Amino acid sequence: MDEPQAQTGHARRPSGRDAKRASRAARAASSIPFITRKIPYYEVLTEEGLATLEHNADTILEEVGIDFRDDPEAIAIWKAAGADVQGERVRFARGMCRALVQRTAPREFTQHARNPARSVVIGGKNTVFAPAYGSPFVRSLDEGRRYARIDDFRNFVKLAYMSGSLHHSGGTICEPVDLPVNKRHLDMVYSHLKFSDKAFMGSVTAPERAEDSVAMANIVFGGELIDPLTGRPKTTIINLINVNSPMTYDATMLGAAKVYARANQATIITPFILAGAMSPVTVAGTVAQTLAEALAGMAFVQLVNPGAPVVLGSIASSISMQSGAPPFGTPEPALVLYALAARARRVGVPFRSGGSLCASKIPDAQAAFESANTLLPTCLAGVNFGLHTAGWLEGGLAMGYEKFVMDVDQAGMMHTLLAGVDLTDNGQALDAVREVGPGKHFLGCGHTQANFENAFYRSPLADNNSYEQWEAEGSPDMTKRANTLWKKMLAEYVPPPMDPAVDEALLDFMAKRKAAAPDSNV
Amino acid sequence: MDEPQAQTGHARRPSGRDAKRASRAARAASSIPFITRKIPYYEVLTEEGLATLEHNADTILEEVGIDFRDDPEAIAIWKAAGADVQGERVRFARGMCRALVQRTAPREFTQHARNPARSVVIGGKNTVFAPAYGSPFVRSLDEGRRYARIDDFRNFVKLAYMSGSLHHSGGTICEPVDLPVNKRHLDMVYSHLKFSDKAFMGSVTAPERAEDSVAMANIVFGGELIDPLTGRPKTTIINLINVNSPMTYDATMLGAAKVYARANQATIITPFILAGAMSPVTVAGTVAQTLAEALAGMAFVQLVNPGAPVVLGSIASSISMQSGAPPFGTPEPALVLYALAARARRVGVPFRSGGSLCASKIPDAQAAFESANTLLPTCLAGVNFGLHTAGWLEGGLAMGYEKFVMDVDQAGMMHTLLAGVDLTDNGQALDAVREVGPGKHFLGCGHTQANFENAFYRSPLADNNSYEQWEAEGSPDMTKRANTLWKKMLAEYVPPPMDPAVDEALLDFMAKRKAAAPDSNV
Repeated sequence: MDEPQAQTGHARRPSGRDAKRASRAARAASSIPFITRKIPYYEVLTEEGLATLEHNADTILEEVGIDFRDDPEAIAIWKAAGADVQGERVRFARGMCRALVQRTAPREFTQHARNPARSVVIGGKNTVFAPAYGSPFVRSLDEGRRYARIDDFRNFVKLAYMSGSLHHSGGTICEPVDLPVNKRHLDMVYSHLKFSDKAFMGSVTAPERAEDSVAMANIVFGGELIDPLTGRPKTTIINLINVNSPMTYDATMLGAAKVYARANQATIITPFILAGAMSPVTVAGTVAQTLAEALAGMAFVQLVNPGAPVVLGSIASSISMQSGAPPFGTPEPALVLYALAARARRVGVPFRSGGSLCASKIPDAQAAFESANTLLPTCLAGVNFGLHTAGWLEGGLAMGYEKFVMDVDQAGMMHTLLAGVDLTDNGQALDAVREVGPGKHFLGCGHTQANFENAFYRSPLADNNSYEQWEAEGSPDMTKRANTLWKKMLAEYVPPPMDPAVDEALLDFMAKRKAAAPDSNV
Repeated sequence: MDEPQAQTGHARRPSGRDAKRASRAARAASSIPFITRKIPYYEVLTEEGLATLEHNADTILEEVGIDFRDDPEAIAIWKAAGADVQGERVRFARGMCRALVQRTAPREFTQHARNPARSVVIGGKNTVFAPAYGSPFVRSLDEGRRYARIDDFRNFVKLAYMSGSLHHSGGTICEPVDLPVNKRHLDMVYSHLKFSDKAFMGSVTAPERAEDSVAMANIVFGGELIDPLTGRPKTTIINLINVNSPMTYDATMLGAAKVYARANQATIITPFILAGAMSPVTVAGTVAQTLAEALAGMAFVQLVNPGAPVVLGSIASSISMQSGAPPFGTPEPALVLYALAARARRVGVPFRSGGSLCASKIPDAQAAFESANTLLPTCLAGVNFGLHTAGWLEGGLAMGYEKFVMDVDQAGMMHTLLAGVDLTDNGQALDAVREVGPGKHFLGCGHTQANFENAFYRSPLADNNSYEQWEAEGSPDMTKRANTLWKKMLAEYVPPPMDPAVDEALLDFMAKRKAAAPDSNV
């Protein structure tokens, strides 16, 4: 999508524009690299309930087992570790996977960004918001729904870079279907590195593409490839390893996981489960199976390279009886999320789930209800890596331009929520009550004047004008305002600086890799 | 708004219609009179933080005090109780108001409905959902926004009656501005009693209108005016007493509160606070002031009639710097809500707050984000009486037909959320995992077949069809589907049975009261 030049011409009121630029700069300066929560976790289950689910996960691992398919090396690794291997089926003594994870996996880790001020700490009390991932389509108010292209991909990288409430550039924000499958990862990784300075995700669709991702990150991080804090290779990429639920890992994902683990890059081991199809049609059954699958995957990564960062992932929904499509934003996935966040804390690994998921095809009320009903549990439960926080539509099939900035607004609110209640003397504000007293108003009092500007979260998209003013402006709905906002942002985008030599090295690497094989859509 | 006759004619496929009726009847039969939560409360503050806010409320009550205006009886009551009275300003020894409340106010109470199966228990682990309250306007997709009429009022009573996820008929659902101000309460109370059999709210706009509300309820409840469980007059009406924040009660509200208290009817003492105007512009300041105001009001009710049911109410927002209008669905009101719910539990009284609040003028994504960001905290915090759960638009200025059924859908989801995780053997579903195993699917297994129908909440409004099917149906947004649903519901409305003699007595009472004074719009 081209940047809308019509909107970028000289502003008619330069002074207002200057003021807005200054305000934006101030907001950018105050943005934080990630959230560290100050409010408690919400947990739906008692310790006894959580213990039951852990016991069931162990039962699944012991009795049913996990298939590791088409990867003799993986089977050999499990045999050497003492698991019960029958063909490709691996079974585990109770507690074996958990012990492997707890022995060496870090409780939290730093994913370095090329701008050190934007490096993120994943785990503990921290929450990192990243854009949605994996859509073949994009949607905008102007063009409706169509296949995604690399220019869309770049646009979303730019929007994520400019969004203070997103801490991460994400990964396959949308599939650039105008590029060949076997080479598009190069352009995606390059876009993240070039058009943003936030941390990003690598390719997982083939082991050699994972290797390309590591190589390109290494070009950018140059000589500083060892993390002085850990003495290990710097973790500069985080990667999404999906499980083929139920209870199956395939060679593609195992191959990518091994590449990243050996390079000390982070992997998110994620069962993506539609309950009733890929797991039992209950919350407790889905939690136990997710836990079993994720523990086996995380343990495998620790066997490949003890200490490599792993994240316990989960994305759960059910299936519609009518269409087979997954609903989102319903209460059951929230219950799964709360339960798994609590279990991940007890295992002692970072947790990835939630975001702004929705089934709606368009950024309407359905999308908003569903997204809010996912993002709020994401935050209250204590998700550490919030993939899919911005842009997700249609069960992940489409990336929405308007939805993206609407979700970023909601992510901004979550910063305020997770900061909790200010109990300083200024926050308690007793003197203001003493000053004003019964029947008066607080508008003019000193405390209000001193605090008003930053006292409450202000949405750039919510309309809080009078009815008459809103009507005079054409009665725009939120989607219309969002359409204006993302275009304005793209028009104002300024790229982060990059050393031209580094840029050239990246372009050289890409050119060589592209020349090394013919285009292919496999 | 007339019932759409076009939609009510003979169905072309009677068998499908019969099946739907049967399905509706089954759902109605399974609806519960109120929710009893099975998941923990969410609290944002530690005990220490909560103690600080209680201390500050005591400081406000002791140092600043509360005005009780234009009501010499109220002043006399406070003098007799030992408060420090200076003119209309009343100050209280630390802990005095809390002690008065804790000595006699019930921790929970039953509000009787004329259908005993629909009586609600307010307090404890229970949550009761009621429609929105007080809008002068209505909005629908067909007519846009216009002033509300008594036929709108009846429509919303009918919709609430038919909505299994609403437990209560509410009060001034919208203002019937086509009726004179001094008589419209009669038609409102009659509509609740006649067109629904759920519990309802009385008039508070003048003491004599409160007396009319009690008299009409007594006609319906007939000879059974004493609650055998308590030996006190049956509580059949709950009523909204708003505080004139900051720290002021006026004669109108005090008058209504006294009428209801003396009749042992329930009062919700609610500071409706826009922070920065009516309280300090901080969460902690707003919580302390709300608590002080509500404690004084609840203590007053206990002095009027010890043991009369009271509810601690709160509705808090801020004001927009641009328009002065209140935003809703932002994080600060959620923090206020969590803190006050926790304080109400520690005082030992039921708590009213939240609902599906929004600032948006229309049921768009803004409305949905804001409503979800209010309703979810409402439920997680443990609100006992959720006024404004359905229909609220535009900061309470408009009652939306489409918004109403959209909110009811969300309220339905909250039933599932608050029921928590099923940890029975069937819920754990280990045998299903054993039966299916790695790489297979769960669609055909016995456990899925046995549980699928009721396993997951199914929204009547969310579109989970394939993209192609949704497009073939005209790409409707949620609002369009909601428009279809509320019309269908009204077309299918069947009134609950009422003894004709009771109906006649109500109509006689109304006729006499209407004849007793000329119409007035004061």
